[in-house]
Amino acid sequence: MEIRFRSDVSVTLVQSVGDDAGVCRAARVSTLGAAAAGTAEAAGLLRYLMKHRHGTPFEHGLLTFLVEAPIFVFREWHRHRAGWSYSETSGRYRELEPVFWEPNDARKIVPADGYKAARPAFEADPKLCGYVRAQVRDVYKAAWFTYRDLVGNGVALEVARCVLPVGLYSSMYATANPRSLMHFLSLRTHDADAARVSYPQAEIEDCARLVEAEFARLYPLTHAAWNEFGRQAP
Amino acid sequence: MEIRFRSDVSVTLVQSVGDDAGVCRAARVSTLGAAAAGTAEAAGLLRYLMKHRHGTPFEHGLLTFLVEAPIFVFREWHRHRAGWSYSETSGRYRELEPVFWEPNDARKIVPADGYKAARPAFEADPKLCGYVRAQVRDVYKAAWFTYRDLVGNGVALEVARCVLPVGLYSSMYATANPRSLMHFLSLRTHDADAARVSYPQAEIEDCARLVEAEFARLYPLTHAAWNEFGRQAP
Amino acid sequence: MEIRFRSDVSVTLVQSVGDDAGVCRAARVSTLGAAAAGTAEAAGLLRYLMKHRHGTPFEHGLLTFLVEAPIFVFREWHRHRAGWSYSETSGRYRELEPVFWEPNDARKIVPADGYKAARPAFEADPKLCGYVRAQVRDVYKAAWFTYRDLVGNGVALEVARCVLPVGLYSSMYATANPRSLMHFLSLRTHDADAARVSYPQAEIEDCARLVEAEFARLYPLTHAAWNEFGRQAP
Amino acid sequence: MEIRFRSDVSVTLVQSVGDDAGVCRAARVSTLGAAAAGTAEAAGLLRYLMKHRHGTPFEHGLLTFLVEAPIFVFREWHRHRAGWSYSETSGRYRELEPVFWEPNDARKIVPADGYKAARPAFEADPKLCGYVRAQVRDVYKAAWFTYRDLVGNGVALEVARCVLPVGLYSSMYATANPRSLMHFLSLRTHDADAARVSYPQAEIEDCARLVEAEFARLYPLTHAAWNEFGRQAP
Repeated sequence: MEIRFRSDVSVTLVQSVGDDAGVCRAARVSTLGAAAAGTAEAAGLLRYLMKHRHGTPFEHGLLTFLVEAPIFVFREWHRHRAGWSYSETSGRYRELEPVFWEPNDARKIVPADGYKAARPAFEADPKLCGYVRAQVRDVYKAAWFTYRDLVGNGVALEVARCVLPVGLYSSMYATANPRSLMHFLSLRTHDADAARVSYPQAEIEDCARLVEAEFARLYPLTHAAWNEFGRQAP
Repeated sequence: MEIRFRSDVSVTLVQSVGDDAGVCRAARVSTLGAAAAGTAEAAGLLRYLMKHRHGTPFEHGLLTFLVEAPIFVFREWHRHRAGWSYSETSGRYRELEPVFWEPNDARKIVPADGYKAARPAFEADPKLCGYVRAQVRDVYKAAWFTYRDLVGNGVALEVARCVLPVGLYSSMYATANPRSLMHFLSLRTHDADAARVSYPQAEIEDCARLVEAEFARLYPLTHAAWNEFGRQAP
Repeated sequence: MEIRFRSDVSVTLVQSVGDDAGVCRAARVSTLGAAAAGTAEAAGLLRYLMKHRHGTPFEHGLLTFLVEAPIFVFREWHRHRAGWSYSETSGRYRELEPVFWEPNDARKIVPADGYKAARPAFEADPKLCGYVRAQVRDVYKAAWFTYRDLVGNGVALEVARCVLPVGLYSSMYATANPRSLMHFLSLRTHDADAARVSYPQAEIEDCARLVEAEFARLYPLTHAAWNEFGRQAP
Repeated sequence: MEIRFRSDVSVTLVQSVGDDAGVCRAARVSTLGAAAAGTAEAAGLLRYLMKHRHGTPFEHGLLTFLVEAPIFVFREWHRHRAGWSYSETSGRYRELEPVFWEPNDARKIVPADGYKAARPAFEADPKLCGYVRAQVRDVYKAAWFTYRDLVGNGVALEVARCVLPVGLYSSMYATANPRSLMHFLSLRTHDADAARVSYPQAEIEDCARLVEAEFARLYPLTHAAWNEFGRQAP
């Protein structure tokens, strides 16, 4: 296997069930009982639910994504517990593949305010970025060579993997209902105008933007109402 | 509206996504990566997952049911929190309908061992059952008459409903993934041979048996494996 | 047993662990590592966590309440699933006690805008309220008499309870961590100035205000920060 | 900072609330109402709850642990979602410390049956183990050197950490209620006699055994009942 380096993530919709009309139907079990006649009525109902925080009608649906991203992204993603399910590639049951993350030139890798830590603002620095890529590739190669050597010598996968960096790509099925998905998006996309601003790392935000695109396509009216009321889970 | 009395429950599948093959695909993200060739291979993989308690592959699916049952059933059902979503008829937002539960002659209404409380064994007593029906109908009618009278006098629905008995039928959308559904079934169906026996009330068990029938139809291999390994959630 | 009528609810703190300093300690596992020197520093850190939605440090604590309230309140409360645990009086395992809810004169029981349903505004109507009390007491008495009669005739508790109205008081242990508790409060207390306004029923709001008082007492700095940033769970 | 190598894990109880008597009190809200007189009665009640799967009384307590273990352990631990809370050292907000995992001679690092993957049986191989330690130390050192170099050159921590291996130690507060804790133990300790056997990796099992010791100390009767009924969460 040849070592590969990537800077992007991939999020593919595997399956889904539910749509704006389905949210309305669930809401009407609670209230009117009558079916919505058209789009305008549905949009109004969805805005009402979002405005007054009637959240449960947004739970009767499911989206499953196949995600490829570095382990450091999955470490953050898996902290979302309510309404999320995960099945990830196991480093105990299968030999992993040598795909590693590196920053591309557009990645803002320098904290803007002189601090080393995560901060509101980063800046890009293409020259430094090239240096980073050279350095991290050396570590990745050494780690991968050792992993393969240990496995080749009969060491269990679960032991050999200890040298693999968190920049290694992994794969998972990630499943959520629309309500939990909106909560995820509210934390993992940056909205400078929000009353309460979160600062997600760029790579999980890349994933979140791809998730949001599918969500907006499948639930256009729900997505619009969610945007209108501050991009917070109902 | 005329008052109606029922002894049964109704559970209708509204939507679903996922099947045995989907569970296998999610499992293979973790392990083999290769697609299953046929049913025998899928059955083997599902048995393996169940036996060794690999639970997450069973979460990437969804079943939504429209349920009609008495409030005392919903009170128990709603205690299932993980992986379950509910949207129930609201007694604050809509005027409720007069459908009430009563035991039919087959309902075992007498504790077999002389205790009043819920017990392993009940016995039917058709004569006593007829007496019960006459008595509860009187209360139901009085409650319904008062509810309607109060609403007619301008009292808010949320106040007027306080007289309505827990034998009143309600409706809900209930959504679960297959793993949470198996956990529900393990508690809400009685299995006298189980190492740890639960004693669900007959009416929620009626619901659970209807849920199980749909589950067995949509996930026949998963259902068989689940039965084989003691009807416990993985 | 004599029938009693109440209009209030009761919320008693049974046990708790955790405080503002504990939230800070959990946050510092993530970040600084150093202990906070004083109250001002703790208040600043808690505001920072709330503003930028770092929610997990607020989960390492627990408050358990013993709650007495009508069943219609518990039906709403139990819909809070994440981070909440409940153990409620069982109508299958013990004979229930005859305590029932009725509106007192201060209860706003008339929708202000002519609708019957739950609405932003209600008005009190003491005269109508007296009529309501007389009517509901009659139903409560008939239901209780029948319940006792059926139990006396050997009918199982789980069957006899079907006539008991949702205005019957029940008891439960309800346990939550501070984060889940703040989410509950954000939905079950009315805040007319909120960007997204919820309209809880008065009786569950009574409970929520009592819960909030204990929370504010045990976590004064967290409570202040939560108020400042819109009374939303982080 | 000097690089350190460890083979052990550390689990320290930070706080707890609740005990066997508290579980009984919560159970009695549901049933008897009367307080237990003594230990024998409590043991009987706890066995009854476990045998008949009355799970909620075991949720009204909390144990918080400070855990130090390699990232590959935390990756597994964080997949436990229901009833668990985590606050982990952030690689975005603080500079990490150079402590890395390596197998000691007693670690069974060779799959017993010729497979590379995780399997029921492993064997120790001290000579091979020494080779592994030498190899992994080299990778750890190279990764750490690069991490420090990048940070020294002004690269954001969140970028520089991409080279750090999953054998790096991390720290977290992990909080659970006793019921969720029993579920964790049922999956993360190996019980060859179980009807459904799980095969946890040795390092997370080390953590689980330390967690179990605290649990057994704080809840001796609950722990005994749990053992008696197959070490499954109720």
